[in-house]
Amino acid sequence: MTLLSETIETITPIDSEWSEKARRRILTLTMPPWALGRLLDLAVDLAGMTRSLSPPVKRRCVAVMAGDHGVTEEGVSAFPKEVTVQMIRNFVEGGAGVNVLARQAGARVVIMDVGIAGDLSDLASSGAVLSRRVAPGTNNIARGPAMTRRQAIQAIETGIRATLELGGETDLFATGEMGIGNTTSSSAIVAALCGLEAGLVTGRGTGIDDDGLKLKTTVVRRALTANQPDPADPVDVLAKVGGFEIGAIAGLILGAAAQRKPVLIDGFISTAGALLARALAPNSADYMIAAHRSIEPGHQIALERLGKKPLLELDMRLGEGTGAVLAMHLIEASVRILTEMATFEDAGVSGSGA
Amino acid sequence: MTLLSETIETITPIDSEWSEKARRRILTLTMPPWALGRLLDLAVDLAGMTRSLSPPVKRRCVAVMAGDHGVTEEGVSAFPKEVTVQMIRNFVEGGAGVNVLARQAGARVVIMDVGIAGDLSDLASSGAVLSRRVAPGTNNIARGPAMTRRQAIQAIETGIRATLELGGETDLFATGEMGIGNTTSSSAIVAALCGLEAGLVTGRGTGIDDDGLKLKTTVVRRALTANQPDPADPVDVLAKVGGFEIGAIAGLILGAAAQRKPVLIDGFISTAGALLARALAPNSADYMIAAHRSIEPGHQIALERLGKKPLLELDMRLGEGTGAVLAMHLIEASVRILTEMATFEDAGVSGSGA
Repeated sequence: MTLLSETIETITPIDSEWSEKARRRILTLTMPPWALGRLLDLAVDLAGMTRSLSPPVKRRCVAVMAGDHGVTEEGVSAFPKEVTVQMIRNFVEGGAGVNVLARQAGARVVIMDVGIAGDLSDLASSGAVLSRRVAPGTNNIARGPAMTRRQAIQAIETGIRATLELGGETDLFATGEMGIGNTTSSSAIVAALCGLEAGLVTGRGTGIDDDGLKLKTTVVRRALTANQPDPADPVDVLAKVGGFEIGAIAGLILGAAAQRKPVLIDGFISTAGALLARALAPNSADYMIAAHRSIEPGHQIALERLGKKPLLELDMRLGEGTGAVLAMHLIEASVRILTEMATFEDAGVSGSGA
Repeated sequence: MTLLSETIETITPIDSEWSEKARRRILTLTMPPWALGRLLDLAVDLAGMTRSLSPPVKRRCVAVMAGDHGVTEEGVSAFPKEVTVQMIRNFVEGGAGVNVLARQAGARVVIMDVGIAGDLSDLASSGAVLSRRVAPGTNNIARGPAMTRRQAIQAIETGIRATLELGGETDLFATGEMGIGNTTSSSAIVAALCGLEAGLVTGRGTGIDDDGLKLKTTVVRRALTANQPDPADPVDVLAKVGGFEIGAIAGLILGAAAQRKPVLIDGFISTAGALLARALAPNSADYMIAAHRSIEPGHQIALERLGKKPLLELDMRLGEGTGAVLAMHLIEASVRILTEMATFEDAGVSGSGA
């Protein structure tokens, strides 16, 4: 049995008994019924995931999965491909958006090279970047498959292995990524899995203009036509039009769900990974928390298909895991409400007359 | 010259030169242009408010203004009036929602009795509650004015004085409140100031049923008919249909603005106070940050009139200041982004080709 199939079999739904226990406790707390809205929904979900009325969420980790994309040769991004490596060096130095917000959230940033094109051997030997390379970047999806089926499984299992390595010291996972060109791949994945036209799910990514958007949409359409990914087979979709880091994100989500731990889903690319994870293991969706809604049009569609309402809506579109680490605060808030608030009885407060 | 008029004269608009400096700095940071969306808008605003590229926001304080409402005798709330005092005791013990979220935010909770009906003399003498009582609750607005014009000014000045007392140790203010019946008063204030029908701005408050909502709407309508508040005179509106704690919230906002410090506006009641503050001093709006959108219908309308888009939208409706302290995290995040992120030049990252 492979690691992937074994992991998929381990994933069970949320425990509704623990969710119900949390719901009952919340109704005794000193506030009108459900007056903290979605913070309380979140507390109920966390209790169900972790089987605890004091869901552990203190030890936090965002896994930044990095990979390059052959499709950049079509000119789909506003940034050159070299930026993938340059940004990873920025992550290691602690200067990127995800570093700043992770420091605030008290989250560890783990950078994993799942298949970038550039050279990071110095950072790999120092341990600053975990080297789990499938290949030096994907092939150009506009002309053929991104990777072999075997490589697709390897990418997913890289994410699963990450949760096995990090699980001992992590209560709350978050997905992040870096890879110039990866919104193009994500658009193709979402279009393929959801049976949607390329134009609906393709956006400006890092900030291309109108002509750039036209070109990018054409490229996504070509990728779908050239590869004919099978929507009923998520591994095929990943292999045909995906990216190594997107496979690793799907794996990270599956691994977190197998450990019954919550996993915050960042932006568009992460949500494409989440759709793949759900297609592989429907119950894994129970452990996903959508962190935010970006302005990328495909993200909104992907979130709807996933059935998740994001916690934050701040017009962000940076990726890296920034939205996911920013939302950790709300996870902590919901747990604190569940565990720290006084009950009507303890506080001697009269209940609602309603 | 009164403290109120003096404060109003001190308030100047945001400093657009400092906002512009922040905008220019942000464009040098290692991300696609404006890729952190509203966090960046917030950073620009904070720089303009505080005239700094490192806006101070570390020392945080939520002022929970408490007052009682004579209109509760009409049966407008799901909770009995005694709950105001009981909840204040809960605040002092640290068991309420606002305490829990303030602990997380690292914010001081200051509880101010601006005019409750019950007895808090023990907590006032111990200093746990600051006693700034205007009167033991307002009169029933369904039958006549809530308070005299003199009392209305006193309530506002109580809020201003709070910022003078707390300003030396506070960078970031937040509004909060406690007062059974105060959504009824807030609905009347918003209806009066915005020239809207009672039905549009009256909601379920702590959770009344359909019949309760009908009754409450009728009471708001009666309050407006009986008192005929003058929309051009915010002190008149406060005196006729307001509450002591709502006046103090307006004062707190004016005082914060006079000190050029940001102030987070909590929910519906706080936003009613914010509308009063803006009517008194239009420039004070520059220092207001709408923390969240509650499910109270009048809140949405009040926010639109204020021209503020809230940071969070989590179906909360607890008040107390909970939304405001929860949003402090985003204020800190925006400042950290402005001050801690690496620039393209520092990090050696290639810029956008766009």
